[in-house]
Formats: sequence, structure tokens, C-alpha cells
Amino acid sequence: MNNFQLLKTSTDNRARAGEITTAHGTVQTPAFMPVGSQATVKSVDPRDLHEIGANMILANTYHLYLRPGIEVIKEFGGLHKFMNWDSAILTDSGGYQVFSLAPLRKVTDEGVNFRSHIDGSEHFLTPELATEYQEDLGADVIMVLDECPAHDAPREKIEEAMDRTHAWALRCKRFHKPNNQMLFAIVQGGLFPELRKQSADYLTSLDFDGYALGGLSLGEPKEKMYSIIEETTGFVPQDKPRYLMGVGSPEDIIEGVTRGIDIFDCVLPTRVARNGALFTWNGRHNIRNAVYKKLERPFMPGCNCYTCRNFSAAYLHHLFNAGELLAYRLATIHNLNFMQNLIIKIREAILSDSYTSFRDEFRKTYRTTDEDTRLTQKQKWIKNRRT
Amino acid sequence: MNNFQLLKTSTDNRARAGEITTAHGTVQTPAFMPVGSQATVKSVDPRDLHEIGANMILANTYHLYLRPGIEVIKEFGGLHKFMNWDSAILTDSGGYQVFSLAPLRKVTDEGVNFRSHIDGSEHFLTPELATEYQEDLGADVIMVLDECPAHDAPREKIEEAMDRTHAWALRCKRFHKPNNQMLFAIVQGGLFPELRKQSADYLTSLDFDGYALGGLSLGEPKEKMYSIIEETTGFVPQDKPRYLMGVGSPEDIIEGVTRGIDIFDCVLPTRVARNGALFTWNGRHNIRNAVYKKLERPFMPGCNCYTCRNFSAAYLHHLFNAGELLAYRLATIHNLNFMQNLIIKIREAILSDSYTSFRDEFRKTYRTTDEDTRLTQKQKWIKNRRT
Repeated sequence: MNNFQLLKTSTDNRARAGEITTAHGTVQTPAFMPVGSQATVKSVDPRDLHEIGANMILANTYHLYLRPGIEVIKEFGGLHKFMNWDSAILTDSGGYQVFSLAPLRKVTDEGVNFRSHIDGSEHFLTPELATEYQEDLGADVIMVLDECPAHDAPREKIEEAMDRTHAWALRCKRFHKPNNQMLFAIVQGGLFPELRKQSADYLTSLDFDGYALGGLSLGEPKEKMYSIIEETTGFVPQDKPRYLMGVGSPEDIIEGVTRGIDIFDCVLPTRVARNGALFTWNGRHNIRNAVYKKLERPFMPGCNCYTCRNFSAAYLHHLFNAGELLAYRLATIHNLNFMQNLIIKIREAILSDSYTSFRDEFRKTYRTTDEDTRLTQKQKWIKNRRT
Repeated sequence: MNNFQLLKTSTDNRARAGEITTAHGTVQTPAFMPVGSQATVKSVDPRDLHEIGANMILANTYHLYLRPGIEVIKEFGGLHKFMNWDSAILTDSGGYQVFSLAPLRKVTDEGVNFRSHIDGSEHFLTPELATEYQEDLGADVIMVLDECPAHDAPREKIEEAMDRTHAWALRCKRFHKPNNQMLFAIVQGGLFPELRKQSADYLTSLDFDGYALGGLSLGEPKEKMYSIIEETTGFVPQDKPRYLMGVGSPEDIIEGVTRGIDIFDCVLPTRVARNGALFTWNGRHNIRNAVYKKLERPFMPGCNCYTCRNFSAAYLHHLFNAGELLAYRLATIHNLNFMQNLIIKIREAILSDSYTSFRDEFRKTYRTTDEDTRLTQKQKWIKNRRT
């Protein structure tokens, strides 16, 4: 059974519109998933997310395994009930987080041994356990356990990680009991197109419900990332959803969609929001800037988000300036709403076969932020974790 | 014109039910005002407050004068528009905060010179300025500028502060342009009943819209505070609202209402919420406690608050344990909703002439928290400010 229906592909490029049928509603693609690693999208609640229009969020097995523990959530009947979220959830396997813990982890063919970043306790994760945990969480989409090497690791390391990822994907697939939970594979292979092809071919032969692109946005040049995305989406099946893990900024979503990506997730919109950086159609601006101090209009006039409908730029500026907790939530709502509107506009453009002009207009008017191109949020996360 | 209507007085004691007509709706009394010093009740938004049923909140002239500045809010047409709150607002004059800044302030008959706790800049506040600022903020209830001495100051100091408070009250009254903004006086006189009488008599002779009790809950024994409240409410007019400033824990609200108080405000419910301490009808409990880790029911079964209607105790426990921002808002909503329910139950009991039995039942079942009786939150605030 195929849970993915491809509705339209752009005539000029690989941009696609489709929908995924999950046990918790339909997810229209392209889709951007807000990140709720610890069973909460930081600072907002399920009602906020519904108002924004999010219909799939990401949660993280690594975080939930450590806190509150998989068994706690299992006893509740799963993550949906635990966090009171009735739409779709995709869970990351925890592999990426565990590999970011170096040198606190040791990998063997059997699995990976790691120490908790919270209390230093020792744990062992295998493909089978990662799958079981995600089944227990009740995820609508389960990710295989993969090994994610650094983008600049030597080719032998990349290849070794890819081979292990393949062996682990097979074990996840064999372990996963057929139910209404989809299982997505993760294509590895670093920045080597021939390895990406080898990885995509092997994983396709195992027939997964979807294919993710792993090991990207780890500090490699953006152009390199874009070309690897373009090549890899040429290697995976057309009739299955493609998920670009840990990406995107607005500009990366545009570039990803253009190259055939259906699903994105990224902490960027929520993380920068808590620092006062808010998205607009011409780039992002920091609400702490003095120009907003007396600005009576909403931060982004015409924006349909709860924040812009109810509060002025000056009030948001004041909340950040005064260090008030409400600032984080209102800014997060705006940024997630912006991402959702971006995705909706992209989808409408694809469906009406005007995506290319929409994209070109976006590229012309949206000013990317230098710090993002110099150092991705993901790198910062890894750096933080490693220190 | 009298904006206050007394609807009912308990036959056994001084408990009263009434209503205050403001330019932003009717405030039913007894009333508890959530504290929004910086134009936001910490962690919640106006929609949350409306759902809770709050119809008057407190904001602080001192905080708003420093940040974002009175002129910014005045340009917006007032605080209601600035913070998007369409129900009533009472503003504190800033006197209490300024006097808490010792030794960073110097008081003369003319006014008080103080240094900002934010950047050390120097400012001068007079009764006229305090009134003008609150007029500019568009407060529904304006408080006079008063001098609030320590509860254990020598009698001469208490008397001197009282006299100055009287002179300042007269200046506020003379300065205040008649409009739809009520002006409340503040009765001082420390723990001396005869001074409280003198203060109440003088201020009553000036005919204010309401009378506040200042200088209480500053570390004096609870029984002393209760007896001063009881005596003072005997000295002020029956047909005007009485406001006990900076009080209430649930138990203090019960004791205050019993002695004839109509309005309360306190940071306690919101502050302890952010530390995980949540109210129930038998006292408060900390959600961080391990007993909640797997508790699938709401923290307080049957509670009608957004938090208890949507989330389990275990989920709240997890959010606090994981240090997630959503924890603060959900806990704050519960505590403010509890305070509002307490006030509603008190009011219904007064109106049906069953307040005494309600109070006695509350006293029997509600276990007060030791740390509150040893050291009030207000004292801690002063201590923090002074260090």
C-alpha cells in the first residue's frame, strides 16, 4: 500500500505537490515540520500549532528515551496522547543525536553505545530498539537508525557509515511489524554522487514508505548541498515521499522543493524566533532593533498569524527588551506561521504550474542572512553538544 | 458619582460582594488581579487571561516608565491598546517599587529621587508626575503616590511617612483631571491602629474613589496583618472599594475577604507557578515531585483550566523536568484559574449568605505552605532588589 499520492510535478523542474495519508490525518506536501524534540515545540502549545496550520511535527526518540523515558509515553498510549497532539508525528530515530555526542559514543555493527548528555548514564541503541521505541511512541512516520558521519570525513569513513546504515535499515525493516506506522529509510553517502546512488538503489530495493536524505547541511557549501540533493532525488523512487532532514531556512526550502524534496524539518524558525529574529518576505529582521521601539503597526503588516493580528511591533520589541516570557511564544508563532504560509504558497504555485516564477520572485526578494550561510544552526548544535 | 456598587455584606462578618464600573467593563468584587508589571502577565497572553475570566489586571508605572517609557505607551493611546487588553487595568503608582530601591533613592516632601534598577540612571517622581503617568497609561484605576516604610520602622518614621502620604494624596487628588479614571488613596500607618484610623479619616475626608491598605504583608506576623486589616476596614467608607495591596495567597484572600477587603493583587500565583508549585483545594504541590512522573490524570482532576483540560500531570512534570518554556505558561494558567475560581466561589458564597461556612471549610482543608508564612514573596522581592 502506498500512503503517498503525487498530485503534480512542476514542468520546469522537480518541484512536487502531493499528500501523505497517516493514521493522524493527511499531510499535504511540500510540508515543513516544526521541531518538538522533547514532546513540545518550544514555547507553543498544540492549539497554537493547529492555528498555524501545522499538520505534522517532528519529535525525537533520543530526547524522549532519556526524558521522560519511552515506557512512560508508551503507558499513555503514545506520544499523541502524552502531548495532546492529534495530527501526524514523525520521529527521528535518535541516531543523529547520538552521533553528535562524539566522543561520548562508540559504534559497532551491532549498534551504538552512548552516554546521556543529561547525566552521563550509559545506553545502547540498536536498529531494532530504535524501531521498537518509535513504535511505542506511536509515531506516524518512523525513521531507521542510521550512521551520520561528518561531511568532511574521508571517503572510507563515509562508505563504512553508508554500509552500516544499509545493514541497519534492513534490520529496522525486518523488525518493524506491519501496522499503520510508515517506515522511512535514510540515504547516506556524503558528498559523493556515486555513493548516494548506491545508497538510494540499495534502500529502494528494500521498498520503504519514504526516503530521507541524511548527512546534509552539516557545514558543506550550500551549492554542494543543493547539487547532492538534486542528484539524490533522481535516484529515489518518484512515488515515495522524500524528506530532507534538518533543513530548512526559507531559502533552503525553496531550493529543496525545486530539486524534488517533499518534507523538511528544522529548528531554525523556532530557535531564531527566541532570539528575536523574525521572518518576512524580504528576509529576517531582529525585533530588538530600535527601529521597532515605537512602531504601532504589526511587525509584518498583513500577516495572518496570531501575533501580528493582535500585537504591534513595538509591543513585541518591548517584550524582548524586558526579557518577558511571552516574547518567545509570540515570536515563535510568527515564524512557524511564516514557514507554513511559505509552504502553502509553494504548494499552490506547484498545483497551478507557476512554481518557477514564484521561486524566481522569492530568490529576488528574499535576502538571506549571512550568518546562516557561514554556519548552519545544525553545526552550532553539534558544536554546542560537543563542548 | 460612585463607580462602586455594594451588593451584599455577609451577616456574620465583613465579607462583601459588589461591582466596580470601569471604562473597560464591570469588575465583580471580590476580585483578584493578576500582576502584569511590564504590560504582560508573565508567560500568558490576553486570550489566556480572558479564558481564565480575569477582568482586571495590575500594571506598574515604575516598570513601564523605565521600559518602554510612558511616552511610547501614550502615543499608542494607552496601555490597553499597547498590550491588547480590553478589560480593566489598575496601575500602581510606582511608589512601592521606588521605596524598595533603598539605598538607591532619596525622599523629600517634593517627591522621590531614585536610580533605575536597570541602568542606574537618575529619575525624580512626584505625586503629580505619578498621576500624570497613570493618566497617560490610560489606567482605569490610578493609585496615589505613597511612602511605604518598613513594617518594623520606628513609630516616628511610620508617622512621618503617613503624613507625607497624606500630603501627596492631596496633591494627586488636586492634579487628577476628572475623567473616567478612578483614583484610589492608600491608607498607611504601619501596625498602629490609631495611625491607621488617622490615615483613613484624613483620606476619607478627601473623598477618593477607593481606599487601599498599604504597608502590609512586609514581614509582620500574619495575625498582626489580619488584625490591622480588620481595624482599617472599619475606618474607611462602606460604599467605596477596599484594595489590599500586594496580597494574596489563597489563605490571605480568605482572611482579607472576611475582614472586608474587595480587591487583591499578588505575584505569588504566577511566581510560584514558574517554579512548578500549583494550587489545589488542599494546598499547593510541586509538579516536579516524582509522584507525578507517570500520573495520567490532570494535575487537579475536575479543574476547568486550559491546562488541566488538555494535559496530564505527567506531561506537566515532563515539561518542568526538561526545562521547556511551555511549562511556565501552563502552570501559570492553572494557578491564575485557581485564584479566579476561588474568588468566584467566595463571591457566590457571599451572595447566597453562606460565606462563613465556605470560609471555615476552606480553612479546614487548605494546607498553607510553611515557606509562605516564614517569608512572604514580597519580602523576597525586596531582598532581591536590595542585594
